[in-house]
Amino acid sequence: MNTTVAEGDFSLVALDCIEKCGLQWIGNCNELNAGYAADGYARVNGISALMTIMGVGELSSLNAIAGSFAELIPVVHIVNMPSRRAQLEKLCVHHTFGDGDFDVFKRMTAATSCMSVTLDCPKKAAALINAALQQCAIQSRPVSIFVPSDLINVSIDTCSPSKQIDSIETVNDTVVEGGVADSVLAELRSAKYPILLLGGYGVAHDIRDEILDLINKLCIPVLSSASCRGFIEKDHYLYAGLYVGSCSDKPVVELMNSADLVLSIGNIQSDLCTAGFTGTVDQKILIDMQRCYTVITHHPKVTVSLKGVTQMMTARVCWNPLPAARIMKATSTYVAKDNVPCNQSQRSTKRVSMRIRLKQCLEGILKYILSPAQNDSPLLHENLWPRVGGWLQRGDIILTEAGTASFGIWNTTIPSETTFISQYLWASIGYTVGACQGAALAVRDSQNPKRRTILFIGDGSLQIGCQELSTIVRLGLAPIIFIICNRGYTIERFVHAPSQAYHDVQPWRYRDLPAAFGATPGSYGSHSVRTMRHLEALMSRHSFRDPSILQVVELHMSPLDAPSDLVTVAQSLKRRNQ
Amino acid sequence: MNTTVAEGDFSLVALDCIEKCGLQWIGNCNELNAGYAADGYARVNGISALMTIMGVGELSSLNAIAGSFAELIPVVHIVNMPSRRAQLEKLCVHHTFGDGDFDVFKRMTAATSCMSVTLDCPKKAAALINAALQQCAIQSRPVSIFVPSDLINVSIDTCSPSKQIDSIETVNDTVVEGGVADSVLAELRSAKYPILLLGGYGVAHDIRDEILDLINKLCIPVLSSASCRGFIEKDHYLYAGLYVGSCSDKPVVELMNSADLVLSIGNIQSDLCTAGFTGTVDQKILIDMQRCYTVITHHPKVTVSLKGVTQMMTARVCWNPLPAARIMKATSTYVAKDNVPCNQSQRSTKRVSMRIRLKQCLEGILKYILSPAQNDSPLLHENLWPRVGGWLQRGDIILTEAGTASFGIWNTTIPSETTFISQYLWASIGYTVGACQGAALAVRDSQNPKRRTILFIGDGSLQIGCQELSTIVRLGLAPIIFIICNRGYTIERFVHAPSQAYHDVQPWRYRDLPAAFGATPGSYGSHSVRTMRHLEALMSRHSFRDPSILQVVELHMSPLDAPSDLVTVAQSLKRRNQ
Repeated sequence: MNTTVAEGDFSLVALDCIEKCGLQWIGNCNELNAGYAADGYARVNGISALMTIMGVGELSSLNAIAGSFAELIPVVHIVNMPSRRAQLEKLCVHHTFGDGDFDVFKRMTAATSCMSVTLDCPKKAAALINAALQQCAIQSRPVSIFVPSDLINVSIDTCSPSKQIDSIETVNDTVVEGGVADSVLAELRSAKYPILLLGGYGVAHDIRDEILDLINKLCIPVLSSASCRGFIEKDHYLYAGLYVGSCSDKPVVELMNSADLVLSIGNIQSDLCTAGFTGTVDQKILIDMQRCYTVITHHPKVTVSLKGVTQMMTARVCWNPLPAARIMKATSTYVAKDNVPCNQSQRSTKRVSMRIRLKQCLEGILKYILSPAQNDSPLLHENLWPRVGGWLQRGDIILTEAGTASFGIWNTTIPSETTFISQYLWASIGYTVGACQGAALAVRDSQNPKRRTILFIGDGSLQIGCQELSTIVRLGLAPIIFIICNRGYTIERFVHAPSQAYHDVQPWRYRDLPAAFGATPGSYGSHSVRTMRHLEALMSRHSFRDPSILQVVELHMSPLDAPSDLVTVAQSLKRRNQ
Repeated sequence: MNTTVAEGDFSLVALDCIEKCGLQWIGNCNELNAGYAADGYARVNGISALMTIMGVGELSSLNAIAGSFAELIPVVHIVNMPSRRAQLEKLCVHHTFGDGDFDVFKRMTAATSCMSVTLDCPKKAAALINAALQQCAIQSRPVSIFVPSDLINVSIDTCSPSKQIDSIETVNDTVVEGGVADSVLAELRSAKYPILLLGGYGVAHDIRDEILDLINKLCIPVLSSASCRGFIEKDHYLYAGLYVGSCSDKPVVELMNSADLVLSIGNIQSDLCTAGFTGTVDQKILIDMQRCYTVITHHPKVTVSLKGVTQMMTARVCWNPLPAARIMKATSTYVAKDNVPCNQSQRSTKRVSMRIRLKQCLEGILKYILSPAQNDSPLLHENLWPRVGGWLQRGDIILTEAGTASFGIWNTTIPSETTFISQYLWASIGYTVGACQGAALAVRDSQNPKRRTILFIGDGSLQIGCQELSTIVRLGLAPIIFIICNRGYTIERFVHAPSQAYHDVQPWRYRDLPAAFGATPGSYGSHSVRTMRHLEALMSRHSFRDPSILQVVELHMSPLDAPSDLVTVAQSLKRRNQ
């Protein structure tokens, strides 16, 4: 797969190569969206590529690539450069500052990449390409490959038979790996109430199985961070819920508060994940395992690959399971799955997690039954998000744009085997339009093309990257796009001065966009929803539930209605800006 | 004027200040377009500001700001940062890489600015702001001002009564200034056939009058580069035509070839300006006067302000006029304005320039009369652009997007007192959508709000930044937008592999975009033009010619029709990529 925008003459010969290589050329409307699409594709299928032209295209995509860097998404950014001769002679070619400096943009792009290589010598090119692709796979971060236009069709010396990128493994130093594994296990063994906190950074694909194996072996309660929804089966006996700082459900907060050790895997404790740092785990009790390093409490960072360490830990765990008494300290009675009231001494891992999930589930049902959701009152976030949970399906790709959607979804039960896409660190609004196109395409390219791609996005964010609906139309993709039409940036309204005009956006006729972008009548569905009854009717319609064509849904909501968690987070952001 | 997009909580308190300062807040749909709009505004009214949020917004605008840097447009880029405390404590806040480095994006932005300042100390802030604004005005290039969110409402120590930015003058060292002025005049005096070549870089506003005074005093033929249309009166007796290398009209090429000295002012000899370097002036006979430096033939660059030097030269010119014999060497007979055939000895400055312009004029009229322009044959570039010339008015703001428009316009007579906006160096496609919004707003803010803003843009380019039509609708601006609907990137088709699908874009219903973006019926005009007859009818309609509301015109043209100059330039680009 290759996402690219055909801007600039330096790129053209390179574009000829894409299909010859068995890749698919997309041609997004602009480079920022192309970068987002590449990110979305990689989140579903593991890796993707973006091709831009030096300067103009390269810089336009930079926010997207920086986002992939922040959020550990492996994207190969190929930048087409003028010919070596033009560079050598410092010609005043377009897309430059006219000063003969052809490296100024390269330096900017390099800051968004874990490795940058310039292919200016046919003899070295193969080795450099391999090295870059390996780093992309190993670090799960963007790499940049700069290619002068005159070298596109030049034969290169190939190095040793190139490896399949997806089979690239980092081999840890066994002494280091063993040391880290043993130290982590020793900490876990001596802890009374350990918890495993799962994040979604750099763990979605090639390390997923290893992490799930480790979880089963460790047998301690597992909490998901906001970035890691759907990673672990929602019915897994160890799964205890969503941890989002003070916005977590009470039993989850109690569980976290009771922990004397938190084994964090692939998690980044950003302000947005932790409800404004209300849930940051104290470093004294934190083991922070990231894709390429581990930090055990206050000890120095050790560079070590997560995959090897998790495998080693799984092999070396010498208890199974941990004594129940060590699992958690609870403070209240609870109802286990079998509905038999239990006392404190009967607690087991399974019951602890069940209690929490069942409580969430019952609360959701009660809320829904008791709410005015079934009548014709306006759509409210407090009704919307619990309802969405019942409509989502196993295997869905779910994208939530930073804003009401990314916080509203905390009140939604996420089915298992879903791919959840949201930026809780980079949080670039507009990201999910391109990402949705990329993700929907990735699904079509995958072994399971029936998975649905579902986007929840606000109107202000949609406006930023709206033209990628055109690419969705052109490719015949069939995502379901819910647009929260609340006339602007509601998250900002809750941070500061809610009635200021700078929060507002021009009201669009969102459901007319596909037609304006060239969709023929009947080739897409469009809907305008103002009440829960409307939504209910729409969601139960088969042609909408499992669509073969693009569906655009306007969800008309009040500018000052927001998910309660968003209000909490917005207040914390406000305080921190002062 | 302030163009900004309200993304991100760090910005919000700062947004409150904008209207309090007497500035206008715009709120574009995205930051790239906001950057383009700021650029367009500054090109019309002299300076503008853009406000973005660190990381996401800042990087999204980077291509636009880099374009302003390349093309010498003074834009103040204000970047809102997290609070100083958040930075000091290296908090894992959103819009960062989560690594506590808050300066990584600043380094990228700094590369697109002639000066960057961080306001992290109230005592130093005023001096830093003044210094940055001065450099912006002096160098006519972007500056960046980084503002932590906690300092927005803090009182600062003001330094000496702040100067009006537009009254800032660089005072040259008088010895240096006098030396440069005398050297240039000496070169001119000893030249037999000197020519003045005008470019549009850094000369549009505060140095304009000085340059025109100098021209009148020097009394040598003046050629305009592609970037400098409409700068000098088209009927000025010294004006000899448009110089675009081998694409220039033959008499202009002859004139340039006869020159033994070229005084170039504010010109950048990019490949696009010179038809692929076919018209690059040899450094041996080039005096290159730029806004902040002068290079006299092979001598070292001297840092000196153009304004002072031009004033000094005007004061010190000791001939008026230069002997006619020295004005130019011509090789053929010609017809002067008064239609009296002249021989070589009768040549005068006035007649030389008249000859060229009259020839162009007659050719245009003949072409138009003899062409199928009046019938129902399809719209062709060879008919379109000469016809546009007759429809343009004194005072128009004319924007041409890089591509068919920016080369087609070479065959259009540009009226006097126009502002011509096109990127012949940075050449970022999509630029003119935002720039059109900014320019149209600048006109409304100016002393002459009746000037028309006219955009010529291709469909592929419009798709890149289409959402800014929404801002045009929201602000009630009334530009006339001609969209060349030829289903993709025609300039690229002429560079390489014309039938490849990667040149194509999704066909949109462009005339429906304003409605989709919320325009009410009757609040805009939309037109679909397929023949010259249609165009003729439209152009002669009063409500279209002087519109009070937005006009969107689809010009349906063949994907493989292009202005002949574009074909020439495309071929040169193709050769250079190899």
